[in-house]
Amino acid sequence: MWLVLRSGAEVEGVLARLEAMGMEGRVLPVGERRLVEVSPNGHLPEAFLRWEEVEKVLAPGSEMPLVRSWNGSFQVGTWDPLQEPLLIAGPCSVEEKAGLLTTARALKALGVHVLRGGAFKARTSPYAFQGLGEKALDWLLEAKADTGLPVCVEVLSERHLPLYQEVDILQIGARNMDHYWLLKEAAALHKPVLLKRNPQATIQEFLLAAEYLLLHGAPVVFLCERGIRTFERSLRYTLDVGAVPVLQAQTRLPVLVDPSHAAGRWPYVEPLALAGLAAGALGLLVEVHPDPTRAYSDAAQQLTIDQFAGLAERARSLYRVLPSRGLAEPLQG
Amino acid sequence: MWLVLRSGAEVEGVLARLEAMGMEGRVLPVGERRLVEVSPNGHLPEAFLRWEEVEKVLAPGSEMPLVRSWNGSFQVGTWDPLQEPLLIAGPCSVEEKAGLLTTARALKALGVHVLRGGAFKARTSPYAFQGLGEKALDWLLEAKADTGLPVCVEVLSERHLPLYQEVDILQIGARNMDHYWLLKEAAALHKPVLLKRNPQATIQEFLLAAEYLLLHGAPVVFLCERGIRTFERSLRYTLDVGAVPVLQAQTRLPVLVDPSHAAGRWPYVEPLALAGLAAGALGLLVEVHPDPTRAYSDAAQQLTIDQFAGLAERARSLYRVLPSRGLAEPLQG
Amino acid sequence: MWLVLRSGAEVEGVLARLEAMGMEGRVLPVGERRLVEVSPNGHLPEAFLRWEEVEKVLAPGSEMPLVRSWNGSFQVGTWDPLQEPLLIAGPCSVEEKAGLLTTARALKALGVHVLRGGAFKARTSPYAFQGLGEKALDWLLEAKADTGLPVCVEVLSERHLPLYQEVDILQIGARNMDHYWLLKEAAALHKPVLLKRNPQATIQEFLLAAEYLLLHGAPVVFLCERGIRTFERSLRYTLDVGAVPVLQAQTRLPVLVDPSHAAGRWPYVEPLALAGLAAGALGLLVEVHPDPTRAYSDAAQQLTIDQFAGLAERARSLYRVLPSRGLAEPLQG
Amino acid sequence: MWLVLRSGAEVEGVLARLEAMGMEGRVLPVGERRLVEVSPNGHLPEAFLRWEEVEKVLAPGSEMPLVRSWNGSFQVGTWDPLQEPLLIAGPCSVEEKAGLLTTARALKALGVHVLRGGAFKARTSPYAFQGLGEKALDWLLEAKADTGLPVCVEVLSERHLPLYQEVDILQIGARNMDHYWLLKEAAALHKPVLLKRNPQATIQEFLLAAEYLLLHGAPVVFLCERGIRTFERSLRYTLDVGAVPVLQAQTRLPVLVDPSHAAGRWPYVEPLALAGLAAGALGLLVEVHPDPTRAYSDAAQQLTIDQFAGLAERARSLYRVLPSRGLAEPLQG
Repeated sequence: MWLVLRSGAEVEGVLARLEAMGMEGRVLPVGERRLVEVSPNGHLPEAFLRWEEVEKVLAPGSEMPLVRSWNGSFQVGTWDPLQEPLLIAGPCSVEEKAGLLTTARALKALGVHVLRGGAFKARTSPYAFQGLGEKALDWLLEAKADTGLPVCVEVLSERHLPLYQEVDILQIGARNMDHYWLLKEAAALHKPVLLKRNPQATIQEFLLAAEYLLLHGAPVVFLCERGIRTFERSLRYTLDVGAVPVLQAQTRLPVLVDPSHAAGRWPYVEPLALAGLAAGALGLLVEVHPDPTRAYSDAAQQLTIDQFAGLAERARSLYRVLPSRGLAEPLQG
Repeated sequence: MWLVLRSGAEVEGVLARLEAMGMEGRVLPVGERRLVEVSPNGHLPEAFLRWEEVEKVLAPGSEMPLVRSWNGSFQVGTWDPLQEPLLIAGPCSVEEKAGLLTTARALKALGVHVLRGGAFKARTSPYAFQGLGEKALDWLLEAKADTGLPVCVEVLSERHLPLYQEVDILQIGARNMDHYWLLKEAAALHKPVLLKRNPQATIQEFLLAAEYLLLHGAPVVFLCERGIRTFERSLRYTLDVGAVPVLQAQTRLPVLVDPSHAAGRWPYVEPLALAGLAAGALGLLVEVHPDPTRAYSDAAQQLTIDQFAGLAERARSLYRVLPSRGLAEPLQG
Repeated sequence: MWLVLRSGAEVEGVLARLEAMGMEGRVLPVGERRLVEVSPNGHLPEAFLRWEEVEKVLAPGSEMPLVRSWNGSFQVGTWDPLQEPLLIAGPCSVEEKAGLLTTARALKALGVHVLRGGAFKARTSPYAFQGLGEKALDWLLEAKADTGLPVCVEVLSERHLPLYQEVDILQIGARNMDHYWLLKEAAALHKPVLLKRNPQATIQEFLLAAEYLLLHGAPVVFLCERGIRTFERSLRYTLDVGAVPVLQAQTRLPVLVDPSHAAGRWPYVEPLALAGLAAGALGLLVEVHPDPTRAYSDAAQQLTIDQFAGLAERARSLYRVLPSRGLAEPLQG
Repeated sequence: MWLVLRSGAEVEGVLARLEAMGMEGRVLPVGERRLVEVSPNGHLPEAFLRWEEVEKVLAPGSEMPLVRSWNGSFQVGTWDPLQEPLLIAGPCSVEEKAGLLTTARALKALGVHVLRGGAFKARTSPYAFQGLGEKALDWLLEAKADTGLPVCVEVLSERHLPLYQEVDILQIGARNMDHYWLLKEAAALHKPVLLKRNPQATIQEFLLAAEYLLLHGAPVVFLCERGIRTFERSLRYTLDVGAVPVLQAQTRLPVLVDPSHAAGRWPYVEPLALAGLAAGALGLLVEVHPDPTRAYSDAAQQLTIDQFAGLAERARSLYRVLPSRGLAEPLQG
């Protein structure tokens, strides 16, 4: 159980009363608010609601109050959601400085809103390229300074978080969606988080991971569907386009689609991207590389800059004729 | 192994030669052609190619020669694939004559190309409504006569096939995709077949079922993705939009999407329909009912006529801005 | 809704009363009983229970009354469920008479209780061996006469049913579990049915298919788990051993396991067979071939007679140390 | 690419040569050995094999050399794999000291070999009980001192690792199987690791995670199958018993089964446990709680001590009649 204190409330008094009742309180600063985690569980929430310091009690069982009531605003670079889809693009992994800068400039010219790039990489094999790490982060920040594009970078370990101070959007990758200690620490940076769905996560589990992030300090969470694991293996994953409206029926958090990881091979990236938008997604996360055949990772699925230019154009045409579902009232499903 | 005989070739001589070699031939009339199934297997195809009666040898292992080489033409009512998506719509099950006629006229006015309706129904429970059967078929043919719309009706048993002489498109439902005896007999009517993917079938198994149909006499097979079964159950099935371009990379047979069965609930039908088209599908199969709350089956997922009118309009807008992928050269994937 | 009439009740009076109420009754002879299907649905079952001809009302929504209350007895050859597992074995497809007889005698000597063999085969490819059909059935009956073993043969089409008069156990294959017209007609032969679970069927759907069979006349249904389709493809299917106790918690119908189709490769057949028994299955369905490398179908997964002998011995040892779960009260899960 | 240096080789010389060639070497102490990670990739392994300091080159693409060649020995408490299955048991989460001690003594009396217990917990909801953390670890170590039982505890964050110095077996939970930074740091403690399969991981991905652990210093990895996520949801997960022999065909690392998480409800724990052993697993990981109805987490699936006593007895009986597959030569599958 968690007590959300009123603004300005004295936390010490709350802790003392808890202790007197044989319980323990642990204080968590969450954004502007203070939360007190009460342990052990098992007490009725009603008791605490009578305390004057307490604004709200988040009880086990009330599931995902922050995700369901989220109604914040956010601004991503120059993006206007009424006009066009959010486009986040860049290489799977950052490999060299010059290439990254060229790519960033080209993407900016094509109207991309956020530059993405991998610094530390989560690879299935310990012998695969694990990313250039800190060096890659530095280059991404140089590309940000050069182009003015905000950057979105995946974070893989709590230990790396101090390096992410200048990163604009923290990405939690699919493998780490349920790595809750990382979620808690990443959220505490109070930055927007792009959260990818684990390929085995139900919609509910996905939203609960977002609840972790909101509770621990993230001001907004971009929910990114990137394919689930099913018996069908002709593409790398099965893009669950149905998840887009199902998510939108439960929360106003923005929903994106990553067609690159679902497709696994470049000719299928565009059909999946357009399908995701048609299902109501507000934007796309796409892997783009100046020369995919030479990429250190995900070579098969990255688009060339030209291929991406075509996709961006068709994505915008399609977005304009779509009903503005993503921005409307949640579906009553 | 199968021998495809040249037009006009004498089948008796072929059978006699097989017998002399200790094999047995079974003659199958497939469309205009004659096929001879040779048993037992195990002989090299090359030997038979030297026989003058033999045009082609379909050997086990050559997988799906007819699906891969299909390049036929077909006409469905007034549909022009260059202008708009194919729209097949109608009630899940036919329940009464007057309602069906009203629905059919309304759908025709909305530009629907084919009327669909269920006569015999495959229901998970033996106590659920099993369809009105022959009576429903009669009413569908009356609606056809009244509106001029071709009709598409599911066939569930070999025994019912004689009733389907006037039906324009035979539908093989998802549950029967791998009921090969039904496929063989249905194909022998030489009508276009709409084949739904079994929710557990791989793309390859789906295409092999189409191969059965083409081999046994169907002039064209509409491949209809309708959702696969995965761990995610917030919708009834997971619409596999990736299957659309994957199918198109392997065959020129037309690919459709059925958003109604994938969604299972009406608010999700439109997002899935648009996603399917955006992924490249040529058309939609949609359940529409004048009063879904009173439907005998699939009440939750049928659209009202008004809801369908909105969907049809948005589907056409979207189709116009899409690249004409479905009609282009197969992808090289 | 279905009315189950009392033994000897007059069906005409029931039909007349229904008609007078604006409803229609369709009579279905189900075993010794008569059922009247009432349409349209929507009436309360209670009304009919007051009629003296009516013994029971099966209403939509009461789900699977026959499966849940089944408490029949059955005898399969010489099998004593208190002593050893039921062993059903034989070749995937019957290919030649002499080999079949040799196999049948060898299996009998090893204590097998039922001989299985394929006559008509459901093959994914139209170019694969489709079974020898009627001829294979004749040979199976000869093997039955020769060895005294009852035979279990898969039925694939309603049209073939007249050929199955002498078959002891009708097998409904996984692909046909939801081919409800076939279920209805097969059940009407009043023979025990071995029903395989469709690899995409939930436990509930599997049991509803058994309900079709019991309703339409099968005295007993052997429920056979044979692997479900999941993302894991290192074996052909994922044997769902958990299904065994879950089924047993809901019905007293006997539960078997088919390790051959789940494994797909012979070295994995025995571990899966033993796992199925340890989970509580009463018996096994195993593919055995005198020379698997020369089999026309499923060559990779069939056991030699020697391999089967080892499996049978270990299966019996294991069965003896197991708690008699399969025969006890249903679990309260 | 990784260079495994010979025992006693000078690492400085290797680094200098790499630098001279425009590459970078990063030294990783892995057990007694030293590894040098070479970046960037792309060089042929053969070149380095000629260097006298280099014993072995692990190249990208050689997949999982350590998992495949592992042939180590290990000792877990008093367990004799020739006599009985390995039994690891204890509460899902440690909740109070007295109860833990009572449980530990009772389990020891029942012949359990390792005590397990949760200190930090990974919970789907941020409002669920997150474990007592460090305090729970202390109590587990007291129980170890009291009973002499080795302890197995899950580790959830790199930051917690310093607290695990006295823990005997580190558990990597299913959610963290692909949290590679945690794998690397945990392995560096040079302790045996119990690695649970992620419910969406293929066998290959599971083994690659074990490769991470072996490469970074774990002397042995217990591979623990605990259920995969499939469409079938009547139990919490689908226990993939086929994974047991498939794993054993590829590695000699010991394979265990966790029936508690797969079942999700206690009546199904025993059937799954026995099935896992019958498939060839060497042991079990079972959740046991003195009073499951009062447990803070996983209440539904924990066994009472009495229930566990029955399971342990039947598991031993079954183990004795099984072929010693787990200890034999890998299958040739």
